Amino acid sequence: MTSPVTASAGTVRDAAPAGSARKAAPAGDVTPSDSASSEPSATAPGILARCRDLVRPSLSAAVGRLHPWPGEMAAYSLGWCEVGGTPADGSFEGKGVRQALAVLCAEAAEAPGESAVAGAVAVELIHTFSLLHDDIMDGDGTRRQRQTVWKAYGTGPAVLAGDALFALAVQTLAETPGPHTAAAVGRLSGTLGGLVHGQAEDLLFAARPWTGPEAVRPDEYRAMAELKTGTLLGCAAALGGLLGGAPARTVAALDRAGRHLGVAFQVIDDLLGIWGDPAVTGKPVHSDLRQRKKTYPVLAALAGDGRRAGELAGLLNSPLGLDDAGAVRAAALVEACGGRTATVAEAGHHLDAARACLRSVPLAPRAAREIDVLLGFLLHRRL
Amino acid sequence: MTSPVTASAGTVRDAAPAGSARKAAPAGDVTPSDSASSEPSATAPGILARCRDLVRPSLSAAVGRLHPWPGEMAAYSLGWCEVGGTPADGSFEGKGVRQALAVLCAEAAEAPGESAVAGAVAVELIHTFSLLHDDIMDGDGTRRQRQTVWKAYGTGPAVLAGDALFALAVQTLAETPGPHTAAAVGRLSGTLGGLVHGQAEDLLFAARPWTGPEAVRPDEYRAMAELKTGTLLGCAAALGGLLGGAPARTVAALDRAGRHLGVAFQVIDDLLGIWGDPAVTGKPVHSDLRQRKKTYPVLAALAGDGRRAGELAGLLNSPLGLDDAGAVRAAALVEACGGRTATVAEAGHHLDAARACLRSVPLAPRAAREIDVLLGFLLHRRL
Repeated sequence: MTSPVTASAGTVRDAAPAGSARKAAPAGDVTPSDSASSEPSATAPGILARCRDLVRPSLSAAVGRLHPWPGEMAAYSLGWCEVGGTPADGSFEGKGVRQALAVLCAEAAEAPGESAVAGAVAVELIHTFSLLHDDIMDGDGTRRQRQTVWKAYGTGPAVLAGDALFALAVQTLAETPGPHTAAAVGRLSGTLGGLVHGQAEDLLFAARPWTGPEAVRPDEYRAMAELKTGTLLGCAAALGGLLGGAPARTVAALDRAGRHLGVAFQVIDDLLGIWGDPAVTGKPVHSDLRQRKKTYPVLAALAGDGRRAGELAGLLNSPLGLDDAGAVRAAALVEACGGRTATVAEAGHHLDAARACLRSVPLAPRAAREIDVLLGFLLHRRL
Repeated sequence: MTSPVTASAGTVRDAAPAGSARKAAPAGDVTPSDSASSEPSATAPGILARCRDLVRPSLSAAVGRLHPWPGEMAAYSLGWCEVGGTPADGSFEGKGVRQALAVLCAEAAEAPGESAVAGAVAVELIHTFSLLHDDIMDGDGTRRQRQTVWKAYGTGPAVLAGDALFALAVQTLAETPGPHTAAAVGRLSGTLGGLVHGQAEDLLFAARPWTGPEAVRPDEYRAMAELKTGTLLGCAAALGGLLGGAPARTVAALDRAGRHLGVAFQVIDDLLGIWGDPAVTGKPVHSDLRQRKKTYPVLAALAGDGRRAGELAGLLNSPLGLDDAGAVRAAALVEACGGRTATVAEAGHHLDAARACLRSVPLAPRAAREIDVLLGFLLHRRL
């Protein structure tokens, strides 16, 4: 059976204009090679695995420098071990999108992927840090079917582990010799500020009303998503280009592409939070609605006028919260008010914009194709 | 009446060898100028105020870049405002020791203090970050006679505010143009790792027993204190020298001096935590004993043999905790077992070592004298 998520994500691809659709390889398929390469194009999982294999020794060595206690929490958070330090009993790792973007963008600058490894390590560490601290702030108790770090180890230790990862990211990048280190550290440090800004906005959204002049507008949500999710994806891409010796114009285009990818990814994540298959998302069906999270589909639905938007607002404003029937009704109303369609269109728009950024600068063809495969894949799958 | 603390601290100065004692100006006094300067030497409060005035515009501008919400928490933590953002109703600022060390060490390298301002801002921001997150981890509800940030704003927001300060510190330093920026950022990033390592050790100490082979030894405590407190003071001094253009050997000596100062300061803080005047420390008398914190005086007392060390261990191991009489008895036992004397000697040793580091390299005489005044002052006063 096709899950609602797959259907939604399929719509994203279907909604992409013909120009970019032609360029995109179907996610997960092996496509015939084009004229620039004699090898078949890699699949997205293959690309992610190759980049992970390239980065892993340095990432592992970096985490190995931590004090053993925050080091164990970092390894748990990365999906490498269980509480207590025994090897992970299952696959709990993220896809490693950020490290892959860094490696591919160095290759797109005609440099070996190895040149981006310090940047790739830094962005993966920052990503892990931000998940860890965000889970504390959001009170989220599970991630990737396991307890979050604060739930498993306690809040204080989780704060410490996040700080350790944050410090390690900056240290790893700053200590890497090379002509671009200072610029790379500068870029990472700006990214950190953006991440915090986005998280602050996201937390403040929770306290704002669903309707009226103080309601969160879709454009405010978009700006938050760009900061919270896009900044680090943009940094990953830009650091890859920078460390690979790309000119400033190319680095800026890679950054913009990553930011658009971030917004697209965030709104797709919002679709998954309402209509995602619990077996894939690891969250109960309609979980974001039950938690009354301010997500793009709901904000887009409420931004419309009409009786059904009013009914949706009434449900969300109910002091009793949403029971099962209420959540089902709210999801139907979001869809009826166009929230789902608007979200798919928003993702498609940002995917197109990311591809336009990538086409605007000269990139090595094979790497550019792999980045494109990855973009398509990311918006069809749960990270 | 002379408080026990003042008496202790007085002993530190009295215990310093004649060589360094001759160099040290009595804290808080205006002393006659020496031959290297026609102006009277500044007092420690005057030195701190001058450095604060120099750094404040940049520190204030940096904090002003934050998102308004973490920005308010940062300003509250810095003692500049109340909850809600109104100007502070009283004086809750720290002494600004780290910023002063940075400025003075640039001047010691014959550079204007202005050259160290970006470093001074970075170390003050990191200091504020570490107090903020440490208070969460330690569960401390008051600092400088006010609620701590997590107590006043909530744990999640306090995590965010710490992250914002951390990011801002790196960003401020990384964005400062100049020939020494990359080296300065590298040094700061190493410092961050050291701070986290020290905090991890300190938290783990709490779970270890008072006696037996697993007990925390005084040398382990010293190593923790150097990381937790000394690393950032060393970084402050070293960044000042570095940004002021000092040669590598001088920068290394300034770093070592700061680390020794950190250990000295930490053990004096431990004395204050047991015998400090509540009106000065803002904590109840014997508070560290009641909380059964693993502090240097207690660890030194327990490291000795004998009946009284055994009685002290028995009190500390009591499952009921310490009541008023128990705390008074424990304090008397720490003193009788030589814990207080050993702590004063330890502080004196590290103060001497810091001064020896400073004498080992050529420094501008006036700045060197002001650093020395500051060192003496810091070990006689509560920060």
